[in-house]
Amino acid sequence: MLSRLREKSVEFRDPLHGFIEVSPLEMKIVDSPPFQRLRSVHQLALTHLVYHGAEHTRFGHSLGTMHLVTRVFKAVIAKRPSYFKPEQTRWYLQILRLIALTHDLGHAPFSHASGSLFPDKQDHEDYTEQIIKSPPIADVITEIGEQLVKELGVDCNITPDLVAGVYRGKATNPHLIFLRKFMDSELDCDKMDYLLRDSYYCGVQYGKYDLDRLVESLMIYEGEDKMPRLAIGVGGVHAVEGFILARYFMFLQVYFHKTRRLYDKMLTDFLTENLPGGKYPKDVRKFLSWDDQKVWSLILQNQESNQRAGNLCNRILSRLVYESPPHSTNDQRRQFNLILNLLKKKFPEVDFYTDGADKLPHKLPSRYNVDDEKAIVVVRNFTSVPVSLSEQSEVIKSLTTPINILRIYSPGSAYEAAKDYVDSLVKDMNPSTKNGSE
Amino acid sequence: MLSRLREKSVEFRDPLHGFIEVSPLEMKIVDSPPFQRLRSVHQLALTHLVYHGAEHTRFGHSLGTMHLVTRVFKAVIAKRPSYFKPEQTRWYLQILRLIALTHDLGHAPFSHASGSLFPDKQDHEDYTEQIIKSPPIADVITEIGEQLVKELGVDCNITPDLVAGVYRGKATNPHLIFLRKFMDSELDCDKMDYLLRDSYYCGVQYGKYDLDRLVESLMIYEGEDKMPRLAIGVGGVHAVEGFILARYFMFLQVYFHKTRRLYDKMLTDFLTENLPGGKYPKDVRKFLSWDDQKVWSLILQNQESNQRAGNLCNRILSRLVYESPPHSTNDQRRQFNLILNLLKKKFPEVDFYTDGADKLPHKLPSRYNVDDEKAIVVVRNFTSVPVSLSEQSEVIKSLTTPINILRIYSPGSAYEAAKDYVDSLVKDMNPSTKNGSE
Amino acid sequence: MLSRLREKSVEFRDPLHGFIEVSPLEMKIVDSPPFQRLRSVHQLALTHLVYHGAEHTRFGHSLGTMHLVTRVFKAVIAKRPSYFKPEQTRWYLQILRLIALTHDLGHAPFSHASGSLFPDKQDHEDYTEQIIKSPPIADVITEIGEQLVKELGVDCNITPDLVAGVYRGKATNPHLIFLRKFMDSELDCDKMDYLLRDSYYCGVQYGKYDLDRLVESLMIYEGEDKMPRLAIGVGGVHAVEGFILARYFMFLQVYFHKTRRLYDKMLTDFLTENLPGGKYPKDVRKFLSWDDQKVWSLILQNQESNQRAGNLCNRILSRLVYESPPHSTNDQRRQFNLILNLLKKKFPEVDFYTDGADKLPHKLPSRYNVDDEKAIVVVRNFTSVPVSLSEQSEVIKSLTTPINILRIYSPGSAYEAAKDYVDSLVKDMNPSTKNGSE
Amino acid sequence: MLSRLREKSVEFRDPLHGFIEVSPLEMKIVDSPPFQRLRSVHQLALTHLVYHGAEHTRFGHSLGTMHLVTRVFKAVIAKRPSYFKPEQTRWYLQILRLIALTHDLGHAPFSHASGSLFPDKQDHEDYTEQIIKSPPIADVITEIGEQLVKELGVDCNITPDLVAGVYRGKATNPHLIFLRKFMDSELDCDKMDYLLRDSYYCGVQYGKYDLDRLVESLMIYEGEDKMPRLAIGVGGVHAVEGFILARYFMFLQVYFHKTRRLYDKMLTDFLTENLPGGKYPKDVRKFLSWDDQKVWSLILQNQESNQRAGNLCNRILSRLVYESPPHSTNDQRRQFNLILNLLKKKFPEVDFYTDGADKLPHKLPSRYNVDDEKAIVVVRNFTSVPVSLSEQSEVIKSLTTPINILRIYSPGSAYEAAKDYVDSLVKDMNPSTKNGSE
Repeated sequence: MLSRLREKSVEFRDPLHGFIEVSPLEMKIVDSPPFQRLRSVHQLALTHLVYHGAEHTRFGHSLGTMHLVTRVFKAVIAKRPSYFKPEQTRWYLQILRLIALTHDLGHAPFSHASGSLFPDKQDHEDYTEQIIKSPPIADVITEIGEQLVKELGVDCNITPDLVAGVYRGKATNPHLIFLRKFMDSELDCDKMDYLLRDSYYCGVQYGKYDLDRLVESLMIYEGEDKMPRLAIGVGGVHAVEGFILARYFMFLQVYFHKTRRLYDKMLTDFLTENLPGGKYPKDVRKFLSWDDQKVWSLILQNQESNQRAGNLCNRILSRLVYESPPHSTNDQRRQFNLILNLLKKKFPEVDFYTDGADKLPHKLPSRYNVDDEKAIVVVRNFTSVPVSLSEQSEVIKSLTTPINILRIYSPGSAYEAAKDYVDSLVKDMNPSTKNGSE
Repeated sequence: MLSRLREKSVEFRDPLHGFIEVSPLEMKIVDSPPFQRLRSVHQLALTHLVYHGAEHTRFGHSLGTMHLVTRVFKAVIAKRPSYFKPEQTRWYLQILRLIALTHDLGHAPFSHASGSLFPDKQDHEDYTEQIIKSPPIADVITEIGEQLVKELGVDCNITPDLVAGVYRGKATNPHLIFLRKFMDSELDCDKMDYLLRDSYYCGVQYGKYDLDRLVESLMIYEGEDKMPRLAIGVGGVHAVEGFILARYFMFLQVYFHKTRRLYDKMLTDFLTENLPGGKYPKDVRKFLSWDDQKVWSLILQNQESNQRAGNLCNRILSRLVYESPPHSTNDQRRQFNLILNLLKKKFPEVDFYTDGADKLPHKLPSRYNVDDEKAIVVVRNFTSVPVSLSEQSEVIKSLTTPINILRIYSPGSAYEAAKDYVDSLVKDMNPSTKNGSE
Repeated sequence: MLSRLREKSVEFRDPLHGFIEVSPLEMKIVDSPPFQRLRSVHQLALTHLVYHGAEHTRFGHSLGTMHLVTRVFKAVIAKRPSYFKPEQTRWYLQILRLIALTHDLGHAPFSHASGSLFPDKQDHEDYTEQIIKSPPIADVITEIGEQLVKELGVDCNITPDLVAGVYRGKATNPHLIFLRKFMDSELDCDKMDYLLRDSYYCGVQYGKYDLDRLVESLMIYEGEDKMPRLAIGVGGVHAVEGFILARYFMFLQVYFHKTRRLYDKMLTDFLTENLPGGKYPKDVRKFLSWDDQKVWSLILQNQESNQRAGNLCNRILSRLVYESPPHSTNDQRRQFNLILNLLKKKFPEVDFYTDGADKLPHKLPSRYNVDDEKAIVVVRNFTSVPVSLSEQSEVIKSLTTPINILRIYSPGSAYEAAKDYVDSLVKDMNPSTKNGSE
Repeated sequence: MLSRLREKSVEFRDPLHGFIEVSPLEMKIVDSPPFQRLRSVHQLALTHLVYHGAEHTRFGHSLGTMHLVTRVFKAVIAKRPSYFKPEQTRWYLQILRLIALTHDLGHAPFSHASGSLFPDKQDHEDYTEQIIKSPPIADVITEIGEQLVKELGVDCNITPDLVAGVYRGKATNPHLIFLRKFMDSELDCDKMDYLLRDSYYCGVQYGKYDLDRLVESLMIYEGEDKMPRLAIGVGGVHAVEGFILARYFMFLQVYFHKTRRLYDKMLTDFLTENLPGGKYPKDVRKFLSWDDQKVWSLILQNQESNQRAGNLCNRILSRLVYESPPHSTNDQRRQFNLILNLLKKKFPEVDFYTDGADKLPHKLPSRYNVDDEKAIVVVRNFTSVPVSLSEQSEVIKSLTTPINILRIYSPGSAYEAAKDYVDSLVKDMNPSTKNGSE
């Protein structure tokens, strides 16, 4: 199949970005089994059981990310057209496109849901790296590299090692370090795509932000160390704030949704018990045979014999009896532990589920250091002195408390009693209100 | 699972319609296995292999249709609030909601794709009817009926037979005949939902129309036979035109897409060979075990041994060598046959696929008869005399030639030769152009 | 003011197109009084009195058209990058941008509304031509031309005469004739922008079409006469159909709205009576002092003394008593005349308004002649023989009956009596219905 | 004109909300001169000179607010249908609709821009109150009241005093205090409409939020004092956060845009000099003759003689030479003052403009007191104990620093020199950077 000849670019119609152009050689990746497997890896695991529209897979997201990284890179270059040599510009863009296209190939079935099921403490990025370096993907990358060498000269080769190296942050060349920011930073094209895409399919507004303005305001900033950095003009600060808030809200409202988290846990628990050795295969070729469909078939086959499988098939869910505020403080965590332990003592036979969902709203350094590798540099109009984003933005500055949602779920059978007990504990904690009504 | 208690309405967040409200008793249908099975019946079969965004299933469409039928019915009633008695209004609305919710339960895997695989010349509507009349759906409908009898009186019962009867057009009561128009007519809520939904997921504009105006302009018209009919005010004519054109364009651009049609054919051919007896089971319970996942598993298992399965898995497609215009005339059909037969003679060993996709742009009667059951009556401002839509609309009047697209596909191996031969035949048919350049 | 220095491109944030880029020299046109005057020329005359959202002016439309012509030209060139020499490509694009930016400068106040008020049978295009050829616009165009000569060579000059010549169709060079199609044809960027823009501001769906697909499918076709033509790939036929239908519906639903037409007539009647000599000034500089605000001030000043002004200010409208179908036949026109004359005889003292709104749905030739200058050529996949759009499209083929809406308005005081009389006439024309109920 | 008879509701097509329904009696207000005047009061003053799409007026916003207040009130009542008596529910809704429809009638030309030009320290709300209490508005309200008394009984009267009293917060009845929250609180329908509307016309994303979820989650909460309060369910917290952030971003990005603020100042300065006594008339009837058109005519007439008028007409703008961060600290304010004073000393002949734009991101109390009148109560799932929004939301909690943007503008002639000087001062303040490069 890889031998199919396509003479001209293929255009994919995308609900988010209009037409996405894929070159004939890139199409060999799209047409390959590891990429087609993404059609059976839901972007948001079992989220469609909560938001029914979210039936989308990593196939569209991978194309969308490649489209966005192209758009962003071109916008950045347009502002300093001669920062790189012409052949470098083409070369770097091709590297970025290949990283974007392949960056999710190593995802386990149901995406992040079962991330803990990788063997040897590996993660999906390790698998992605291996897939990039193995046939058939490696062969296509090599072919693209040879093509570039022919057109641009021997300096512009692309190899599987190069793609994987830039992606994994192993490159030391300043230009390649710069490239990586487009695909792995607080402002990367991976996030840019999935926020819009997940919002679109879920039917929510939370993940939307001002993409046009964001793209428009990104630029190259060269610090005193002569290293290029991804920076934004001062006019784009609010677009970045909107972007970071979009991500924050998507975590609170969709990614950390109480029922979605529960499904993830049920899925992981089932797989831990039912995968050989409780893990996905080490061998990449075998690993690639696992997709959502194969996992779900396993669940279906076991629905009678295995209670976890039965619960998943029939959506028999435990129910939330207690939840901390989204950014729980130390006191609130202690309170949570107390309630949990009291519950366990009161209902020793009940198998309560607990879950802790935590995330930093962003990883931008709060110290005002433009030279910090993670800083987003803001280029201001009124001074030649750039500042760090956290200095410029009140929103970023104040959004530093980690998300930390603690939850206790009870099986349905014990739910009423457990909930009543938790309610009584909560009331006892708020006696003033009671008094107020006396 | 059906015993789950829900005290209040559940709201589903829908990308098209915002929040969709489902009552506790209706939720018993949503929670039942026949309805949950719709999560594994893609709305547009294998269309996501062409438009990658179209990964949506009949689950969301069924909810959306129920939402729309509610909205439309309420808008119609708001213009003549006392046309039905208050208890009738509630009763009829509940009947409509149940029809909308259940109307797609009988779809075979991959929706229409394999419709020809039903036994005994049945179709998906026959299966839907059987599913409505069997547990667990029948039980819930009965329970809802009992509830209504309690609240509204014995005249307002709802039974599985009633729901199925209205849906299948067997009811003779004028009110019930009227109800059916909301779910089965040239302007029904099934089409209203799927056009918008398919456009949204495919990422195309073709299926969009002015939903607000359409809903706003629908009304009851009582003809001289005192039968209520679904009519539109003259201000809504263009919204109806837009709606009918939306459907027309979706057929041409999406539903009859050359590659999508090919996938449907490949799928049907595979199933005809591989289903027991070449058909889905007669028994409804067994039938319901078949969904997209089960069919796709079967294809995967056979991909080595069965060429059709292998081709499907690896997207090895025949390629189009000839296509008629979308509305082929008799002459164009003769031309098609000639080319086909010449091709077969020239390449006797090649297995060419042919396909004919046909559809009426609409079924509105072109004679101006407002009493025709299929007519859409237009209530005009300037006269008390209503007219038929086809009289009022130039677009409807002129859009009467059936779509009829004839296609010849060649296996990839023979493609170049076959295409060259077809091209030479086409050139020979257009000698004047050649002469023109001499 | 024209001396303002701007070093870099300015970006206008547009609700339709995102960011619109304007070069420093082009900004001199945008900043000039004739262009700023467009901020006081409503795009749709008094339509905001009907669709309250439609408060937009020709300022945004002119920028939007320049943006679209750039996007379309680039898309067309991308498919045949070496059809023109590189310097020609840049030169032609600049010509197109200047035409798009200036094409509406000659509009009278309230746009088309008072088009008949130009002296000497001139029209707004004549005035546009004069404005292009006079300072300050001519000076800027000359400056841009000089700049291009410096950069691209003496062949690439741009003069006011050239811009006006291409715009008015006086150029005889095949390339320049080709350019004109982007701004004056059945598929031009002027229409592309205003359909989307008017829909957006009115809040209607009618004018929306698949812009991405349309742009994507446009291409250069070189016929046997070696002349370049604007053509579309066969995959874009439905996008073109959607575009032509969008225009058709906008005429029926917005541009020919009964109340909007009435306001236009009231405005024209008032101006005919109150402009010096019943016409706008011949002198372009004096003409440019007239904008919506100046006309409306005149109306306000005369609202007590002049009844037409008073009616406009206070929205005292005549009301529709009779309207023909949108595509009236000869019989329906006779019927209209009969009703009108009977009305006049019955109410000799009443001043009825009549209006006839007519328009061709499109001007595409129905004969299948790809060499006709007005034809849109469709380049098909399966043959090297291109066809004309009307051959390929059932919609275009059938949408040939002209729109012709005939209306009679009555002053409010006589409305009830006149309407009753018209109703009785209509009933008398439809006796069969009466009989039916007897 | 107020005597026009309309028998049925009129529907306005709105770009934001679809169809907006207005009753026949309410149409008398819409048709009245004070309401029609809003067609000549731009919603965002001269913002269209910056964001060219923003040509919208308070006419559409007033209709939109009435639509939203209806939608929100109905959603709130639907969750506790018997909280008010049926006749109260209708009565309260009509009061709210009238407040929403009339709430902006007292705006001066160009909306807030020239608010300081009211005489006697009055503001636009004082004028609104007077307009509500005078004919013709008062007459229509009285007529509506009489109609309600007829239909619902004598307790349900509506008078101009009642409408104005609720609007201005003078009502003491707990129900009426509750009503006011829909039109004047941190979550009111005025803000809900203008954020969406301004975003739509400007073409930005900043003001968008999850309207559906927000409306869905609003409810009545009755505290221990038995007073009804507007509250939100815990599922709506993020929608409220999104809403408050939308407002925050619109202030930073649109309402406090540097050029927009400058235009406001230029307009106010001109009017202070040119209005009789520097103020708008005290007399409401005379005041109502002032709209954007009248003010702009005055500017046009004076453009030769008055420099401020000339600058406005020709958009000759001062330019920004220094700007503080958006939330300037005490130190940053001192820094600003220092720069300003040094500038004045260095360029004593230059007339620098300064501007300070300040605003609280929200006025929600940060103390966790649900009984505080300004608190938004959050009703949580897991306890019967409600909390205050600021307790539940990290975003609200942290967004407390006021916006405070300080700016210095220089006339164009002095710009280059002034800017260079400011730049040198800024560099001197950041010596470390300099050193770093040595």
